[in-house]
This record gives sequence, structure tokens and C-alpha cells, in this order.
Amino acid sequence: MAEVNQGFLDEWHRVVEMRDLEALGRILAEDVSMGAPPYWDKLHGRPLVHHLLGMIIRTIDGFTYHREWHDDASGAGEIALEFHGRIGDLDLQGIDLISLNDRGEVQNLDVVIRPMNALEALRDVIAPQMVAFLRDNAGA
Amino acid sequence: MAEVNQGFLDEWHRVVEMRDLEALGRILAEDVSMGAPPYWDKLHGRPLVHHLLGMIIRTIDGFTYHREWHDDASGAGEIALEFHGRIGDLDLQGIDLISLNDRGEVQNLDVVIRPMNALEALRDVIAPQMVAFLRDNAGA
Repeated sequence: MAEVNQGFLDEWHRVVEMRDLEALGRILAEDVSMGAPPYWDKLHGRPLVHHLLGMIIRTIDGFTYHREWHDDASGAGEIALEFHGRIGDLDLQGIDLISLNDRGEVQNLDVVIRPMNALEALRDVIAPQMVAFLRDNAGA
Repeated sequence: MAEVNQGFLDEWHRVVEMRDLEALGRILAEDVSMGAPPYWDKLHGRPLVHHLLGMIIRTIDGFTYHREWHDDASGAGEIALEFHGRIGDLDLQGIDLISLNDRGEVQNLDVVIRPMNALEALRDVIAPQMVAFLRDNAGA
């Protein structure tokens, strides 16, 4: 049975707790992909995923991790983390599904959130900022 | 490290694959609670949760399980299961967060789904049926 990648988990939790966005960039693979909560199509590449994750962490109030699950069958690289938080007056519960590559970097991250009203509120805060980011970085 | 409750998982997968809704009722605790994808407040009790789960399984086309995670720290009773499917033309990805009681029954189940348009479509199919179910079983 594979060991959990505890080094990655310790750093992930430290990064989120400290809002250490610079360090967050260092644990994402250059070609990281992300399934964002509101949309089906994956987002690609470290700059875009890094920016979106930073916005999610900053926008959700009281962001704290709770349960943690591992996929023993596929080794140390598949992790599911539950978080809770609030946006405005709305409670939310979410799951990070993290797949690590051989270097212990995030290769794919899917983020799933309930309930719908909190997800809508989160999207309404973040989507305009994402549009601005994409516009400012077009062709970069 | 705790063993996974493989007996429960085998039965859960059989129930979903066969759409065996009668057997589904037998693996839910009488006082089961459920966090449904669109709403924050938990639903309570076997009849309501059983009915809602049956509707979700029947409404999502091509419902299939993929990754599976376990919480080693808290024993065999905490499981996360990823499913994929479609509603109409919309792809969806969801997670079942299952907590078992000492008898190996589902004590709590949270279901989280992305993306938002598929979740809205699912809610729009199921919510009217839930209203009818609650009306028909009021005071039961």
C-alpha cells in the first residue's frame, strides 16, 4: 500500500493557511490542468490555474480543510480534501480532487462545490476578475 | 491502518449498476442524512434520502463510478467516490462522500456536482418530483 505524500499535503495546507500564493505556484506543474467548479472544460497551464486558485482562496471566507481521503490503489498521488467556508452569508462545502505527478506537483485539480447558491455567488465574484486576467494576459 | 469496508462498496456498486432501488433502501441507516448538491440544509430520514438517491441515479445518464478514496485515519467508514454521467447534452462529474455507521449502513451522504449548468439541469428535473413526493408523504 502506497504511503501518502505527506510532504505535499503539509506544504499544501501551509500554503492555503498562510495564503502564500507565491509558494502555491511552486507546487503546480507547468502544464497543470484544473476543472473549475462552475465549468466543464478544463483550464490549462500554471499561470491561469495559479491565478484562479488564489482568487478562490481569497474569496472564500473562513476557508478551512476537514476530511481527507487517499486512493491507495493508485499510490500516493490521488488525494481528496474537503473544505468548508462562506461567501457572504452563504455556507459552502467543497472538495479538491488532487492528482500529483512523479515530481510531487499538482498535475490536475478538480474543485467541486455545493450548494448552488454559494457556487453562483463565488462565480459572480471571480468570473469578472478572470475575464480581466485573461484580457491582460492575452498572447502572453 | 483500517481495512476498507469492501462488502459495503461491492453492494453499493451493485445497487447503482443494477438500479436495485429496493436494495438501496437496506443499506441506508434509518436516520440517514444527506447533503444534496443544490442545497445546504441536510435532508433527513431513510424514505426521503432513498427517494432522492433513486431519482438522481435514474436521472443521470451513463452514471459510472471512477476514482475512489478512503480516509485511513478515521477507519473504514469514510469513503469518497467519483462518478461521471450526463444530463441531456451536459457532461457532469460528481463526488459521493459516504460516512458509514458501525453496522456498515450509510449514516451521511454528501453529493457534490460540477459544472453548474449540469447541476441546474438536474435540479430542474428532480425538484418538482421531490415537491410531489413531500406533498404525498406529508404527515406520513
